Amino acid sequence: MKNNAKEAIVKAAISLFHANGYSGTSIRDIASLAKVNTATIAYHFNNKTGLLEYCFMYFFEKYIGKMEEIYASIDRGAKDCLKRIVANLLHYQCENNQLTSFVYREMSVDSQVVREIMSTYSLKEKYYFQKIFERGFEWNEFRPHSIPYLIIQLKGLLMMPFMNTHYMREVLYVFPNEPFFEQKYLKDIHFWIDKTLCTDIPINKGAIIK
Amino acid sequence: MKNNAKEAIVKAAISLFHANGYSGTSIRDIASLAKVNTATIAYHFNNKTGLLEYCFMYFFEKYIGKMEEIYASIDRGAKDCLKRIVANLLHYQCENNQLTSFVYREMSVDSQVVREIMSTYSLKEKYYFQKIFERGFEWNEFRPHSIPYLIIQLKGLLMMPFMNTHYMREVLYVFPNEPFFEQKYLKDIHFWIDKTLCTDIPINKGAIIK
Repeated sequence: MKNNAKEAIVKAAISLFHANGYSGTSIRDIASLAKVNTATIAYHFNNKTGLLEYCFMYFFEKYIGKMEEIYASIDRGAKDCLKRIVANLLHYQCENNQLTSFVYREMSVDSQVVREIMSTYSLKEKYYFQKIFERGFEWNEFRPHSIPYLIIQLKGLLMMPFMNTHYMREVLYVFPNEPFFEQKYLKDIHFWIDKTLCTDIPINKGAIIK
Repeated sequence: MKNNAKEAIVKAAISLFHANGYSGTSIRDIASLAKVNTATIAYHFNNKTGLLEYCFMYFFEKYIGKMEEIYASIDRGAKDCLKRIVANLLHYQCENNQLTSFVYREMSVDSQVVREIMSTYSLKEKYYFQKIFERGFEWNEFRPHSIPYLIIQLKGLLMMPFMNTHYMREVLYVFPNEPFFEQKYLKDIHFWIDKTLCTDIPINKGAIIK
């Protein structure tokens, strides 16, 4: 019963934070949508900041978990590893598109919670991308290039569909929650990896990796 | 004197909206930073929504103006036109990085103002990108591909550095307000145009364009 209430609160918070922004949503709005009283929210999350922190951690724990899991098999090749990470992260974001959308928006506001999240999760994310790019350079799979600039591009491609969901739907008529989008867009990001990140020269992978 | 006050209000609003978000900023905060009284803000902008609308329009009028201006010389080639538009938009965003950053964040919140802005400026932006891509396909400069998916990628690359300025500075140590960033990142977007958008087959441009 208690867990049901907690889940309902998180679900309501994600939906309202997504639609109206974090600052534009009150604890009372969330309580009303979740059909609980405000004391129940206080019991589980202390206050609105606690709820925001919970949403950030919920999102990034799984996000980084996916990166870690796939990075473990980096020895199969940097390009292969990056392609699988991108596929997993895109799938994760599509499945949780409202949460993704509001997390990315709120991450752009300067606050204590955001700084804490960045100093743990964003640094971890950077660490894995950096490792993959470094391996890719070393194994001659990727063209040498500035790692921060590669991260900007890759994250731009990965985040864009969720940064502005109204624009996607109402201007481009593209729906990031549909499986068709995920398949099609993944091909585009993989194409970016093949064309701009990878070297033109075909390499004998087996010889280099081992 | 009056115009000075108006300018000071806009400048203060951009800075506060950028740092604390639109909903996290009060008219009183803006008045205090701009060193005017709240009645002066009411006189120039009616209310906070009026001020937001002004910022959106200020940003997009110039943004679309730049696209229009360069699109006029599309006959020099679609690739050339797109590269010049990208250079101009990136420069504009770098020059106005706080405004850009908060405009993109607030555009992701669903509101009446945002819907109005999208139905004018975002549609115009889409129109120009669409025209350029269509010309590029027609003239065999670009690989045939879904236009909305190309717009997502191009906008992702263009918007990313401004969507999360704290992340850029504190995690990647990249500073989008510096000329070095603009030069280096422009090369990356041009590389994307060359490698993923353009066909591999060199074409006799003169013959096709006329």
